[in-house]
Amino acid sequence: MSPSARKAVVLVSGGLDSATVLAIANHEGYACYALSFEYGQRHRVEIEAATRVVAEVGAVEHRTMRIDLAAFGGSALTDRALAVPEAPTRGIPITYVPARNSVFLALALAWAETLGARDIFIGVNAVDYSGYPDCRPEFIAAFKELANVATRLGSEGGRFEIHAPLVELGKSEIIQRGAELGVDYAATVSCYQPSPSGEACGRCESCRLRCAGFAAAGLADPTRYVVPRSAV
Amino acid sequence: MSPSARKAVVLVSGGLDSATVLAIANHEGYACYALSFEYGQRHRVEIEAATRVVAEVGAVEHRTMRIDLAAFGGSALTDRALAVPEAPTRGIPITYVPARNSVFLALALAWAETLGARDIFIGVNAVDYSGYPDCRPEFIAAFKELANVATRLGSEGGRFEIHAPLVELGKSEIIQRGAELGVDYAATVSCYQPSPSGEACGRCESCRLRCAGFAAAGLADPTRYVVPRSAV
Repeated sequence: MSPSARKAVVLVSGGLDSATVLAIANHEGYACYALSFEYGQRHRVEIEAATRVVAEVGAVEHRTMRIDLAAFGGSALTDRALAVPEAPTRGIPITYVPARNSVFLALALAWAETLGARDIFIGVNAVDYSGYPDCRPEFIAAFKELANVATRLGSEGGRFEIHAPLVELGKSEIIQRGAELGVDYAATVSCYQPSPSGEACGRCESCRLRCAGFAAAGLADPTRYVVPRSAV
Repeated sequence: MSPSARKAVVLVSGGLDSATVLAIANHEGYACYALSFEYGQRHRVEIEAATRVVAEVGAVEHRTMRIDLAAFGGSALTDRALAVPEAPTRGIPITYVPARNSVFLALALAWAETLGARDIFIGVNAVDYSGYPDCRPEFIAAFKELANVATRLGSEGGRFEIHAPLVELGKSEIIQRGAELGVDYAATVSCYQPSPSGEACGRCESCRLRCAGFAAAGLADPTRYVVPRSAV
């Protein structure tokens, strides 16, 4: 990264996708400002993973912001009274967190504007995904339009770019791209309901997508599972 | 309000505009869920005013959410090192808080979706205002587009409505409308730098707009100022 590198805000959740996006943004020469959220998710394992990912992959700065989306509830990821499904469901699953990516991108935009950054990276994916509406290309396009009317920069003729480099990649392609860039996926946690020590359940939709992605990529899956994969 | 009233999330800051909007939403028959933010603003007076406004005007429920926009800085409203201007400035003033209304509306959207509400009210105004980009009609239109691709409701064919009933009204028209609806503006605080006991400075842009609005409306200004108006 050169001293004059363009700054970018990169959303980092501690999962496989955002770790890959951080590596891509670094590879493209951006000075990366990583942003994570304690948003009331069921487990702190995700925040610990985000810290490991940023340490491994690299960023100029890493901030973790607290925002209590659990106060609103409505998702199995923020409300312990709702069980995480372990079999495929129809439609948008109960793990969808209402407006989560809108909130996260709005806060990334706030930081970008104060940093003087015009670039925001997010690891959404609309191929091997859970069907969340705020992971689709049309969501990213709509947020970009919003960013450019909502801000000082946009209203003065500048343009924000919302980068979603994984949006049209399959999980195995994402893993291959990250592996090429040297991402150590052992640092990441994708599971919706990991054990307190960070072991994946192997049964939720996020685990299934991740596991199938490593298999399709022909790469060893470094995930620590609660039970041996052979028993799943 | 009937038991079957449509639910609406109403952003309430404690200022004159959002108090009027809450009264309008109630008058239109919505079951109002008021949402306020402790976002790192310079003073708690604003939160106290929001509580008074909701108690006076009425809502089914009032939540105040914490979100530390001061961590990003970049505004005189969240950074005490930056002075609030007391004379008109060119362009977007330093009191602009980067992406604030995008963050607030995204959180209102999260609550609306969990409540099953399709209506969100916000008191932005683009006539007698400070030139903030996220107070303009094009911002509201862009957010509505975003809401309808970002959410379960929108992706399943429903439509969110973002109501900004003041957006094209002058300050005196807003005050007249609120007065007709019985809003007690003594409960509200508009000042960017009130005293700890809630007295307005009488000098910042927000005070100037408010004071001129009462004068143009031909109504008594109930604002408590730090110094008598005659001395300002």
